[in-house]
Amino acid sequence: MQNPFFENIGPFYIKDILEILDLNQNKFLDNPKVLDIKDLSMSNINDITFFHSKKYKDIAKTTKASFCITTDNLKNDLPKNCTPIIVENVLVATSKITAKFYPNSVNDEFDDTVIDIRNSKFKDKVKYGKNVLIGNNVLIGSNCLIGHNTIIEKNVSIGSNCSLGSNIIIRNAILKDNVKILDSCIIGKHGFGFFPNNKINLRYPHIGAVIIEENCEIGAGSTIDRGSMSNTIIGKNTFLDNQIHIAHNVKIGENTIIAGQVGIAGSSIIGNNVKVGGQAGISGHLRIGNNVDIAGGSGVIKDIPDNTKVMGYPAKNIRKFLKENR
Amino acid sequence: MQNPFFENIGPFYIKDILEILDLNQNKFLDNPKVLDIKDLSMSNINDITFFHSKKYKDIAKTTKASFCITTDNLKNDLPKNCTPIIVENVLVATSKITAKFYPNSVNDEFDDTVIDIRNSKFKDKVKYGKNVLIGNNVLIGSNCLIGHNTIIEKNVSIGSNCSLGSNIIIRNAILKDNVKILDSCIIGKHGFGFFPNNKINLRYPHIGAVIIEENCEIGAGSTIDRGSMSNTIIGKNTFLDNQIHIAHNVKIGENTIIAGQVGIAGSSIIGNNVKVGGQAGISGHLRIGNNVDIAGGSGVIKDIPDNTKVMGYPAKNIRKFLKENR
Amino acid sequence: MQNPFFENIGPFYIKDILEILDLNQNKFLDNPKVLDIKDLSMSNINDITFFHSKKYKDIAKTTKASFCITTDNLKNDLPKNCTPIIVENVLVATSKITAKFYPNSVNDEFDDTVIDIRNSKFKDKVKYGKNVLIGNNVLIGSNCLIGHNTIIEKNVSIGSNCSLGSNIIIRNAILKDNVKILDSCIIGKHGFGFFPNNKINLRYPHIGAVIIEENCEIGAGSTIDRGSMSNTIIGKNTFLDNQIHIAHNVKIGENTIIAGQVGIAGSSIIGNNVKVGGQAGISGHLRIGNNVDIAGGSGVIKDIPDNTKVMGYPAKNIRKFLKENR
Repeated sequence: MQNPFFENIGPFYIKDILEILDLNQNKFLDNPKVLDIKDLSMSNINDITFFHSKKYKDIAKTTKASFCITTDNLKNDLPKNCTPIIVENVLVATSKITAKFYPNSVNDEFDDTVIDIRNSKFKDKVKYGKNVLIGNNVLIGSNCLIGHNTIIEKNVSIGSNCSLGSNIIIRNAILKDNVKILDSCIIGKHGFGFFPNNKINLRYPHIGAVIIEENCEIGAGSTIDRGSMSNTIIGKNTFLDNQIHIAHNVKIGENTIIAGQVGIAGSSIIGNNVKVGGQAGISGHLRIGNNVDIAGGSGVIKDIPDNTKVMGYPAKNIRKFLKENR
Repeated sequence: MQNPFFENIGPFYIKDILEILDLNQNKFLDNPKVLDIKDLSMSNINDITFFHSKKYKDIAKTTKASFCITTDNLKNDLPKNCTPIIVENVLVATSKITAKFYPNSVNDEFDDTVIDIRNSKFKDKVKYGKNVLIGNNVLIGSNCLIGHNTIIEKNVSIGSNCSLGSNIIIRNAILKDNVKILDSCIIGKHGFGFFPNNKINLRYPHIGAVIIEENCEIGAGSTIDRGSMSNTIIGKNTFLDNQIHIAHNVKIGENTIIAGQVGIAGSSIIGNNVKVGGQAGISGHLRIGNNVDIAGGSGVIKDIPDNTKVMGYPAKNIRKFLKENR
Repeated sequence: MQNPFFENIGPFYIKDILEILDLNQNKFLDNPKVLDIKDLSMSNINDITFFHSKKYKDIAKTTKASFCITTDNLKNDLPKNCTPIIVENVLVATSKITAKFYPNSVNDEFDDTVIDIRNSKFKDKVKYGKNVLIGNNVLIGSNCLIGHNTIIEKNVSIGSNCSLGSNIIIRNAILKDNVKILDSCIIGKHGFGFFPNNKINLRYPHIGAVIIEENCEIGAGSTIDRGSMSNTIIGKNTFLDNQIHIAHNVKIGENTIIAGQVGIAGSSIIGNNVKVGGQAGISGHLRIGNNVDIAGGSGVIKDIPDNTKVMGYPAKNIRKFLKENR
């Protein structure tokens, strides 16, 4: 799949890629063109990928990529079709190459392509408030509402029967049909992703989007960041209350209910029919099953299996927690 | 009392009400008109009310309503003047009838009645910033300030000597004298109230308002939702810090102080002279007494009596908590 | 140092100061002029200062101020050059005197001095969005971006290469070079500081600023309040995620990383190279050392020494916490 929003300005010769990593370019006799950078499973022939942790060993073995940024330790897990490129820090190198292919994905300056909706092609199609701004590459379905001062920045696709409130800022997002976004949400900005550095932190690119499926509602003042390499996804008919923060790459299932001021850290995956009480927090890179109940105020720091009720910090079985905390 | 903001488009014949509940309309020989839907205590003759839990048995016995949505289990607690209407799910049925009487209370689309304040009757009466919008049915007292980009949507009554910051959105609210609302608050939107349904959740109506009494201050970026059947109330001289979330039907007393990022879930009642530390959370449907101190970060999951200091999650006596957590 | 933003409208005769405190003015034979009010360490000859807690005994002994608001208990710790002025409540008296010198620091009404940036001296110097407003006493360096609907209120100094998003409100703040402020932040408003009073709370003045050093990034929807007597400071290359609340007088060091929804209460001091996980809370008046790791969701209620990892509520050594909470 082509990236829907960020323009790939490649292909680039492999030697030009080695150059930005300060690697010896004479290692390769020929100098093939590299088409794109993708993760291990999505890559194809003539793409470059990255492999930074044993965890992904099984996927690495079957990658179709022609090149892979990795370490000396890991390189033997790659298949023959894939030439390892050995670096010290895989993620930093990956970030540099991604920025080369997708230079517009690193910084999120305000979108200066916007125009007043009254001067756009949507002026007779959408019901809108005062001072609404529309960026490049925006689609809006039928029967939509857009409130006052809302800014639809570039790269936004809105389905039919959607209702957006006022003072919203949105970019790099796909809203399916019948989605409701309440006032003052900020959706689709880059996530909190960077490599710390004592002089000046190095931001890495965010080439993902935010995808909000049919019938969802997002409460007032919430922030949903777009993904770095994958997308941030809110499943069908999931409702979020006010002041919620959803970090980059999070995937939430269907029919899930999340109460006010909840925060979900980067890359966690939440199942279907989950209930999350107010102010609960979920750490990054976790997997929360289906039909899980997380009590308000809980702090979840490990995976939660299906059909479980948890409470406390660290969150544990709710009966155990209540027994221990009389 | 008539609902100040939401127009009752009734009366309706009882048979028309039975029809939207898919109930047999031949049960009644005559077909009287029903004037309004109210809770058990506020109802009057020719109104319809609802009764869904044993908790309200004593109030049910004295209701003046002519009809009551209830279950087979509960119907015998109703007085003779009140005809029970038996349903499977009282709250869903109540929601449907409320939506019939008050169709404008279900969805909160952006208010398209607003006009620029410079074209309104307030242009010489109020001191205002740039790009201020004013909706229908708005009252503003003397000596008020309204900051830039603030939207006073429909159904707002503002007292004298009030100061509103910039980027605020407010509707369905009554602000008494000398109230201060800081920047970017969102006040009076419907609460997070709906009946979960696997295809598409069913929102229930919110016919309440937000009432903010004299001398209150509401911190920047806070959200205060209006009530569903009753009002959300902030008592006199109560101060809220930044980024606070107050859910629907919450009632807060006088001289109470609530620090940053606190969240109070639906229908809880907080007393006078209460202090709530930063990031504390209070679950729904609780009663917090007068002169209570809740330490920052606490999670309150049961009622707290007057003159008590609590801490922890679940919040307990502060001395006990500190002793157990050295 | 002169206050950069708030105009000192003094000097005042000492008898005029005694008058607003309802103190006997005949105590002093002569009636010297008082130039300014500052804290114990910053005061100079002909200034007035305040001393309200034994904690500051050592600083009190060396103050250069000519007058000091204090109590009978504490007065003997003052040097001979400093005349004690005995009051019942030192902080209330200090507040009244500060308000006399700096009358514009008590209330934060919206700034009605702003003009459209297109009519300002910055129109050809800055890249800006729609509907940007600029107040009095604003400086902006070269190569800056300011997004849509952003309001730069009075008393703001912005360095070079800064990027501000949309819907931001900022006042009384100094941003150094290469600072990035994401959408909808509110920076420089007064803090949550007042003396509770059963009729009407008494706000105290905030004459400090917010200072954000080079290379910082502040996440979307965050609020950073300005200081009361000192400044609120964010150190170099420190990154804040979304929806963070930083209260008045907080000082954060360099290269610190703070995840989403964290709250830091008033006057706490955070070191360099600190990592704070999502939703953690830090109480007021604490000192967090350098190289400290605070796990997400923790509640810190006491000082944390350098090079420590803590977790839980109350936050304690992370190994101890995890051992106790299996």
